[in-house]
Amino acid sequence: MVSPGGRRRVTVLGATGSVGRATLDLIERHPDLFEVEALVAGNDAASLAELAARTGARRAVIADPAQGPRLSSILEGSGVAASAGLSAMLDAASLPVDWTMAAISGAAGLAPTIAAVRTGGAVAFATKECLVCAGAAFMAEVGRAGATLLPVDSEHNALLQALGGQPVADVEKMTITASGGPFRQWPADRIAAARPEDALKHPTWSMGAKITIDSATLMNKGLELIEALHLFGVEAGRLDVVVHPQSVVHGLVTFRDGAVTAGLAAPDMRVPIAYALGHPHRIDAPTPRLDLVQLGSLTFEAPDPDRFPALRLAREAMEAGGAAATILNAANEVAVALFLDGRIGFMDIPRIVADALDQASRRGLSSAPATIDEAIALDGEARAIASACLLESRPRSQ
Amino acid sequence: MVSPGGRRRVTVLGATGSVGRATLDLIERHPDLFEVEALVAGNDAASLAELAARTGARRAVIADPAQGPRLSSILEGSGVAASAGLSAMLDAASLPVDWTMAAISGAAGLAPTIAAVRTGGAVAFATKECLVCAGAAFMAEVGRAGATLLPVDSEHNALLQALGGQPVADVEKMTITASGGPFRQWPADRIAAARPEDALKHPTWSMGAKITIDSATLMNKGLELIEALHLFGVEAGRLDVVVHPQSVVHGLVTFRDGAVTAGLAAPDMRVPIAYALGHPHRIDAPTPRLDLVQLGSLTFEAPDPDRFPALRLAREAMEAGGAAATILNAANEVAVALFLDGRIGFMDIPRIVADALDQASRRGLSSAPATIDEAIALDGEARAIASACLLESRPRSQ
Repeated sequence: MVSPGGRRRVTVLGATGSVGRATLDLIERHPDLFEVEALVAGNDAASLAELAARTGARRAVIADPAQGPRLSSILEGSGVAASAGLSAMLDAASLPVDWTMAAISGAAGLAPTIAAVRTGGAVAFATKECLVCAGAAFMAEVGRAGATLLPVDSEHNALLQALGGQPVADVEKMTITASGGPFRQWPADRIAAARPEDALKHPTWSMGAKITIDSATLMNKGLELIEALHLFGVEAGRLDVVVHPQSVVHGLVTFRDGAVTAGLAAPDMRVPIAYALGHPHRIDAPTPRLDLVQLGSLTFEAPDPDRFPALRLAREAMEAGGAAATILNAANEVAVALFLDGRIGFMDIPRIVADALDQASRRGLSSAPATIDEAIALDGEARAIASACLLESRPRSQ
Repeated sequence: MVSPGGRRRVTVLGATGSVGRATLDLIERHPDLFEVEALVAGNDAASLAELAARTGARRAVIADPAQGPRLSSILEGSGVAASAGLSAMLDAASLPVDWTMAAISGAAGLAPTIAAVRTGGAVAFATKECLVCAGAAFMAEVGRAGATLLPVDSEHNALLQALGGQPVADVEKMTITASGGPFRQWPADRIAAARPEDALKHPTWSMGAKITIDSATLMNKGLELIEALHLFGVEAGRLDVVVHPQSVVHGLVTFRDGAVTAGLAAPDMRVPIAYALGHPHRIDAPTPRLDLVQLGSLTFEAPDPDRFPALRLAREAMEAGGAAATILNAANEVAVALFLDGRIGFMDIPRIVADALDQASRRGLSSAPATIDEAIALDGEARAIASACLLESRPRSQ
């Protein structure tokens, strides 16, 4: 699918977000290597138009139909074809290109990511939803289409690089690292009293509120273990998490001969994005270089299962298989939103998740969703269950 | 060259040394994967005979002709063919096998290692001589024969694993680590007064006396940089050393996108040997597993060029190219022997090396040896020059 000039045709879904912008920044530095087919964004028509004009994209698509006229008017005469609405977005994601960045976050990203996977090209992705909610169904789509998945979150990207194409049968253990979050050194009683603003001071990465809370509970690492399970096809018992506050070692692969390879980088999302853009080759990227001498020391510690029960819950859900990961993820989203809203305490997050898993189990929700649609339905059911758990959980934290 | 039963035929040159024994220990654990063609040793006939009988080797060769009758007598009726002498050793090394471990140390290992390379199979090697004294000539032999070189010293093995078959054109930097040696934290005046017994208390690895002194001067890291230059075909300016006292990160590769992959392992030579045995696959090995949580902290610091001038000398020789690395290595061997003999001070080692490099340059010794024989001749000339530098250097250290 390489175009006549030999350049790779790329589409960016979620072009105006931080991952999309970083991707386009790298693409613009390599006009000899890439040409932009389509840029897709949610509702920021002005930014989308500017990015599309600057990168010479063939088309720009805004998901929000209300923003269509604005996009068209800005792009008039630019040579960029403008369109709007969900079906236009899916059409753009379905165009055959060499490489797609799927960086539309949340449930909205599921359908366009699947559309991109179905083209059979390389799909870089920055969202957990596909693998956490619908891992088996999503990987079945990937297998059918022969698509190449390229994770750009730092942990899975590091595992991909450390694995280096070697068979997973030779892997004894895959380890991802956790910064430990803002409460790493807090005692249990202080964590229990934590407010949203305490968690939002994250030590290393600048992220959205939801993922920052997940990083404080360590649920993010649990979700990442579930992602790794599906992405690499590795058994639950071979996946591990280690706390590493400096966040420069992102993932390690231990092989059956005892050798370990690790993926490291300065904490900058452009490193894994550049890797995914270049794959299977490498491209130059103006990313900060890792300086071990300047860092001086890299430390490692075991996560504390008592202060951070969310990680244990996620591991149990991963080991249980079936519907559990989908329910865990949905219940966690509900609980985090309630916490951010000031309606529950910090330790109510894992409590609601645990209660939702129990409730769902009692209702017989145990089968893994076989399709993306089933996953979306199960996700909805789990959210309802988690919301119902709210009343049950509140008194316990008081 | 896989034998009818599908097992790999292997030969071990230097079977009775620590690398040879570790190799055979791993081979014996995998009787379904390997069969032993030939075992070669220097002069320990009893050990060689025992190893050959135990591993079911087809033949055992002892380099020392005086030990031939003893070997033959022990192996009589065992089914193992015994022979002795240098030409028998070269014949054994020249037998077409799938995999050879070339672990005969020093100049004695050169000819059999070259013979193994010429068979065009996979050659694991544990000796620096081939690459440091005769890098270009040796690599030309490797290229002509289409052999696969598999380094089993921990640093180059880690670089090989971290590179993972990716092109060196994509490599921005290759970094090897140094434990820092026994004088890492010593002030300059204490280092200058160091005696051989001070250096022989090496912190992490148990090694021979020569390499232990090289580890104390950091010359070993300089020699390893020169090895890496030839082995990976990477420019001198892209090679670096960092001091890492815990010795679990052995090598790191920085790519042009800023991503870094690293090779790690508990400090146990069986890890890289197992990797080389399994290559391009992996085999199970009962090696100690790396436990980052138990280690707690990995530290990194820059080597001090003032207290450890040998590393700077080696880097300059590497950058100069031509004859310099051969001369550096020969002069260092002479100087280390003099130090171990109590005839010069510790800081005379780099002084003699520097003087020998100057002298050789003044005598017009500047061309890289084009053949192994030229390298051996140049090595001899450099040893003579270094010995002559002794008188010159002594007064300066007093």
